Amino acid sequence: MPPAGVAVTTPVFQRLCLIGAGLIGSSIARRNRERGDLAGEVVVTARSAATLARVRELGFADRVEEDAAEAVKDADGVIFCVPVGAYAGVMRHIAPHLAPGAILSDVGSTKGSVIRDLLPLCPPGVRLVPAHPMAGTEHSGPDAGFPTLFEGRYCIVTPLPNGDPQAVEKVREFWRRCGSAVESMDAATHDKVVAIVSHLPHLIAFTICGTADDLSEETRESVLKFAASGFRDFTRIASSDVAMWRDVFLNNREAVLEMLARFTEDAHAFGRAIRWGQEEFIVDRIQRGRKIRRSLIERKQA
Amino acid sequence: MPPAGVAVTTPVFQRLCLIGAGLIGSSIARRNRERGDLAGEVVVTARSAATLARVRELGFADRVEEDAAEAVKDADGVIFCVPVGAYAGVMRHIAPHLAPGAILSDVGSTKGSVIRDLLPLCPPGVRLVPAHPMAGTEHSGPDAGFPTLFEGRYCIVTPLPNGDPQAVEKVREFWRRCGSAVESMDAATHDKVVAIVSHLPHLIAFTICGTADDLSEETRESVLKFAASGFRDFTRIASSDVAMWRDVFLNNREAVLEMLARFTEDAHAFGRAIRWGQEEFIVDRIQRGRKIRRSLIERKQA
Ligand SMILES: NC(=O)c1ccc[n+]([C@@H]2O[C@H](COP(=O)([O-])OP(=O)(O)OC[C@H]3O[C@@H](n4cnc5c(N)ncnc54)[C@H](OP(=O)(O)O)[C@@H]3O)[C@@H](O)[C@H]2O)c1
Ligand SMILES: NC(=O)c1ccc[n+]([C@@H]2O[C@H](COP(=O)([O-])OP(=O)(O)OC[C@H]3O[C@@H](n4cnc5c(N)ncnc54)[C@H](OP(=O)(O)O)[C@@H]3O)[C@@H](O)[C@H]2O)c1
Repeated sequence: MPPAGVAVTTPVFQRLCLIGAGLIGSSIARRNRERGDLAGEVVVTARSAATLARVRELGFADRVEEDAAEAVKDADGVIFCVPVGAYAGVMRHIAPHLAPGAILSDVGSTKGSVIRDLLPLCPPGVRLVPAHPMAGTEHSGPDAGFPTLFEGRYCIVTPLPNGDPQAVEKVREFWRRCGSAVESMDAATHDKVVAIVSHLPHLIAFTICGTADDLSEETRESVLKFAASGFRDFTRIASSDVAMWRDVFLNNREAVLEMLARFTEDAHAFGRAIRWGQEEFIVDRIQRGRKIRRSLIERKQA
Repeated sequence: MPPAGVAVTTPVFQRLCLIGAGLIGSSIARRNRERGDLAGEVVVTARSAATLARVRELGFADRVEEDAAEAVKDADGVIFCVPVGAYAGVMRHIAPHLAPGAILSDVGSTKGSVIRDLLPLCPPGVRLVPAHPMAGTEHSGPDAGFPTLFEGRYCIVTPLPNGDPQAVEKVREFWRRCGSAVESMDAATHDKVVAIVSHLPHLIAFTICGTADDLSEETRESVLKFAASGFRDFTRIASSDVAMWRDVFLNNREAVLEMLARFTEDAHAFGRAIRWGQEEFIVDRIQRGRKIRRSLIERKQA
């Protein structure tokens, strides 16, 4: 009989290889350590010797491999958990070593670029099912993960138009077992939605911090002192990982630029209304903000 | 002997008149009800019959007056607690009735406009000391207030260049007794600082809600569904009071427009870097965001 808390259900994968062991990768591994229903064995690989050593110490992997090509051997599931800008390079390295029939998935914050970078290098028989767990914190690295990270959060799966339905269902089941509510959409829709709900807010937050940083010494001092009312909320989302966000902006370029253009047009219109004292326009904008907020509260997303 | 919890110190004012009984006004009155060291008597006036009736029910005022002109009579302290756009009209009405030697103060979120609107109408001998408690919630009205609202928050006093030092010290002491850390600066500096720490973040939050609201039906639906990652934080500050924010934007026009211009220039530069794949620029911006965030954490403002 298995010890209490260990699953009796068949794991989704026999051998799962996680490429990358940061916040997301280590959370997946920890989840399996706790419940055992994701994979019979979890093999972890990462880029640096320091991370590999730390993964060994933390003990959430069944096996740690230095070489990603070695790590993917005989794995029936492989999940990319590295910044999306690193996908192409890693894929070139591992592609020849992927097991026939393996399911290849990922957790990247952009999806069009992932298909662009992985699909052309996919050996025949390897089934690509991109995914994006909408869960995260401001922290990164193997110490940042925890097994409940994905609980109650959405995971968006973006199956290829001609993708294997069985492989898609396996990936969906994987994320359900991580505690997530799984949604499917095409990659282009995904990229537009995350551009406005996540990438543009981050771009704005990074930008306003820079704007504040460029103010005269005296004003900047006061900004830090009196940050409480609004600015502070922006800086919180601005404290995210550098490599991840660089890659997100560069790999969701079209959607981010489109949303940025729409937003700056709207911001200019707001500024113009302030300049010319157009009360009705201003009141309308404020009311729309409140309306959206109320919709979120009704949906319990606030 | 006074009952436990009631101050033995002399109150700052003998008779304090609060003009407006929303979040801020009612919090001041409640604070005095609890501690008694702000004023010997608190007279409250408000615009609508509904608010006046509610103030009577809630019982935080010693006296409720329908007519502001009646309310300010014989008060040695008068504090404007209404949206800044209403100051000029109210002041025209009460000015002839202000007691000689009275201290006239306020809690408005802009300070240049307050001096512009109140000072010319100040009768000789009435001493104007503008102030801005940096405390608030998303709620408004007489039910929203609570006596600890100002505790541990900054209050910025913006004395006039030739203001009476004794009157300034009284207002500073008033806010210290409200639990605030009191700072002084000139009105122009105040308006610039709040433009970037508070007014611009609100403008951005209102704007991005509108941008999202204008998306196609399908995308908007998804935005509400997947709001969790960044967007949600923006909508929280977008749920503030309409009249207050309309007045703030219209009455801090120059500073808000300047900060908006700086910000949109910076946002455009960020967009350009994404378009042309300028990694270094993007990394630099992200790092500055993190740096500002760290400064806030070090100052315990985060
Ligand atoms: N954090 C979030 O909020 C969040 C949410 C949803 C999805 N995601 C996505 O999840 C993925 C991983 O994010 P994370 O937060 O887990 O990041 P993380 O904590 O910074 O971990 C990144 C991992 O990728 C490895 N790595 C980094 N650059 C690499 C490269 N050039 N080549 C090979 N390996 C590299 C790192 O190895 P070393 O430690 O050895 O450098 C580390 O193991 C990203 O694609 C991100 O877009 C993140
Ligand atoms: N809320 C914040 O976060 C915050 C923070 C710091 C400073 N402030 C400043 O504090 C002041 C009051 O804000 P609040 O949050 O207390 O607002 P609130 O809760 O909406 O209350 C506003 C009060 O002003 C009265 N009022 C509104 N329009 C008026 C008009 N045209 N003429 C006369 N009276 C009018 C209202 O009377 P009725 O109820 O009868 O309509 C109500 O008593 C504003 O200047 C604001 O900028 C606000």
